[in-house]
Amino acid sequence: MSVDGFRASAVASEMRYKDRLDLGLIVADQIVGRAGVFTKNTCQAAPVIWSRKRISTGQAILVNAGQANAQTGQNGIAACRHSAETLGKELNLKKRQILLASTGIIGAPLNLEAMDRAIPKLVKELSPKGFDNFAKSIMTTDTKIKVAIDNGAFKDGTKFNVWGAAKGSGMIAPNMATMLCFVLTDANLDSHLMNRMLREITEATFNRITVDGDTSTNDCVLFLASGAAGGPLVVGDAQARNFSNALYEVLNRLSRMIVLDGEGANHVVEILVTGAKTLEQAKMAARTVAESPLVKTAFYGRDANWGRVMAALGRSGALFDPYKVNLFLNDVPWVENGLDNNRDKEASQVMKKKEYRLTIDLKCGRARHSMLTCDFSHQYVDINGSYRS
Amino acid sequence: MSVDGFRASAVASEMRYKDRLDLGLIVADQIVGRAGVFTKNTCQAAPVIWSRKRISTGQAILVNAGQANAQTGQNGIAACRHSAETLGKELNLKKRQILLASTGIIGAPLNLEAMDRAIPKLVKELSPKGFDNFAKSIMTTDTKIKVAIDNGAFKDGTKFNVWGAAKGSGMIAPNMATMLCFVLTDANLDSHLMNRMLREITEATFNRITVDGDTSTNDCVLFLASGAAGGPLVVGDAQARNFSNALYEVLNRLSRMIVLDGEGANHVVEILVTGAKTLEQAKMAARTVAESPLVKTAFYGRDANWGRVMAALGRSGALFDPYKVNLFLNDVPWVENGLDNNRDKEASQVMKKKEYRLTIDLKCGRARHSMLTCDFSHQYVDINGSYRS
Repeated sequence: MSVDGFRASAVASEMRYKDRLDLGLIVADQIVGRAGVFTKNTCQAAPVIWSRKRISTGQAILVNAGQANAQTGQNGIAACRHSAETLGKELNLKKRQILLASTGIIGAPLNLEAMDRAIPKLVKELSPKGFDNFAKSIMTTDTKIKVAIDNGAFKDGTKFNVWGAAKGSGMIAPNMATMLCFVLTDANLDSHLMNRMLREITEATFNRITVDGDTSTNDCVLFLASGAAGGPLVVGDAQARNFSNALYEVLNRLSRMIVLDGEGANHVVEILVTGAKTLEQAKMAARTVAESPLVKTAFYGRDANWGRVMAALGRSGALFDPYKVNLFLNDVPWVENGLDNNRDKEASQVMKKKEYRLTIDLKCGRARHSMLTCDFSHQYVDINGSYRS
Repeated sequence: MSVDGFRASAVASEMRYKDRLDLGLIVADQIVGRAGVFTKNTCQAAPVIWSRKRISTGQAILVNAGQANAQTGQNGIAACRHSAETLGKELNLKKRQILLASTGIIGAPLNLEAMDRAIPKLVKELSPKGFDNFAKSIMTTDTKIKVAIDNGAFKDGTKFNVWGAAKGSGMIAPNMATMLCFVLTDANLDSHLMNRMLREITEATFNRITVDGDTSTNDCVLFLASGAAGGPLVVGDAQARNFSNALYEVLNRLSRMIVLDGEGANHVVEILVTGAKTLEQAKMAARTVAESPLVKTAFYGRDANWGRVMAALGRSGALFDPYKVNLFLNDVPWVENGLDNNRDKEASQVMKKKEYRLTIDLKCGRARHSMLTCDFSHQYVDINGSYRS
């Protein structure tokens, strides 16, 4: 598939890997709007520093997999400048129009010689059909390519398409390695609107699989609009309603793909905390349960061992009365007022599903928060997953 | 081995497991001092509530493995009362003299019938030679029995012995399942002194492998002194110096055993953070690095991938300048001012050792904190451990 106004390509640059696509490019004929969200990690990779500064002028995105260009100091920034210059010459664009993203080993310098050799071919291969190869080229530990698309129409009838590609591997979420995401649309969108939507929807999707602000050195989401679909410039939130639903669809699907990726992840579980005293406490509770290896191995073993959920809640820092808490697996009332509700059989049935929800009602207040997590399989569970049997 | 003034025993009660020791007992002829530290988890198991209240009168310890008697409400407390009564009758002790500890499945009621049947035999088998069996009976996911002993003499020449046994499995540290520890001595110690020592030394040992206050529903350390070694009552810290060194030895060895236990844990790594702005920040940094699956798989793969340490530090919440941080592996200056120091080979040599230290100098202040962690092996590393090679 393709999005009007964009071309893409990928090549095997051999910057670090052999014989695999590892350098990808997206170029827009013209851009009407742009937005980006970037890692809050104290250690920011050079391409993150580069692209954050130039997000409002970007027209092309160059991504390499294998070398993160992070913790590379001034040399790292110089490498960004060099890449942007080299690519800019080929594309007839200025340095500030080149956005950069990298993923891979931290601390290793970019292999600029290999990149320089690869760039002419990369530009030559640009095509409206290059998007799947691009999505392939950004993978590192990912076992599956992650692409999602959606489309729709504004109220005036103007149709639009949204395309997104991501990398990131769910087994290690929320302590994930680099998460990169690139979103393209042909809609005629204003940059301020795009920024608002991207921030809000990232919070509801990617930030539910990672931990608030706890991102890697290189994480970023870049979002470009070509305007090729035509129609009037869309500026207001009400006007953009249908578009923001489509954007949510795409990012939500990509974030679920990230959670499901990784050998052995068999279940995506939404941890929904309700009735918390404060939002902060709802987040602490959801995060602690979502990250608990003991809870995650129980998900893997389809073992309705609710005590592990209680133990995780009890050390989360959230306030609650242990004998008021209710737990549900989908609609099954699993635990009532902190005590076993004798629903082992129904609970185990829910745990066989590929996706399900664990609801935790703390009955202390009105705050709520949810996170997505996956089960934890592997030899690790040889001990923990079978503990109860 | 044995400690004067104590007898121990264990039986296969079949409360939950079949054909294995799962109920253990320690009884003192007389007690001069007692101390205990208990979980801070919001969900406190019934035996924790029971023993915390009775620590100052305890003379016997009854421990069962398999059922945690946690999240069992009033029934759980009644089960404690019943166990103490039944055992008390056999031992001719009052209920308040019976301390209780449990480990196993949360939410399941204690199998009191099986326990009642087992208690007479348990009491009959009490012996100064029963300590190894006792240590065996408290295991759940543990793959190895954990016992440590030390001895010494007070300044006046009075000799003393310290014996400790623990359960807890390192693979899941710091998100560990229940950690139980029982410490016995023949020294003539005052309870207040014992409490001070136990708190201080627990902080420096078990609390360096778990996360501050983040303990399970059942965690506890019980510490009894028989005084059978004779000599004057030891009350003051200066007087107790040699004893507290021995206690540290025992608890330190037990906490290392916990970290090393668990299939596949090959390395114990001390994460020492120095130069932090505040103690809180030193703790956040040490904890984040110690818990990072990406760092732990690098330890497993003996992969000198320092970028994972930087990425974990960067999301820890500790303040620092990424280009001022120094990292050392034992004495090898691995990273200097945030940049690679080209010591891959020496660093990899250190990472082959069974125990080593990663020092992180944030160069922001004077606070420091250290934690013990282990490597993370298992299929999980098929993807992560080999990522760099």
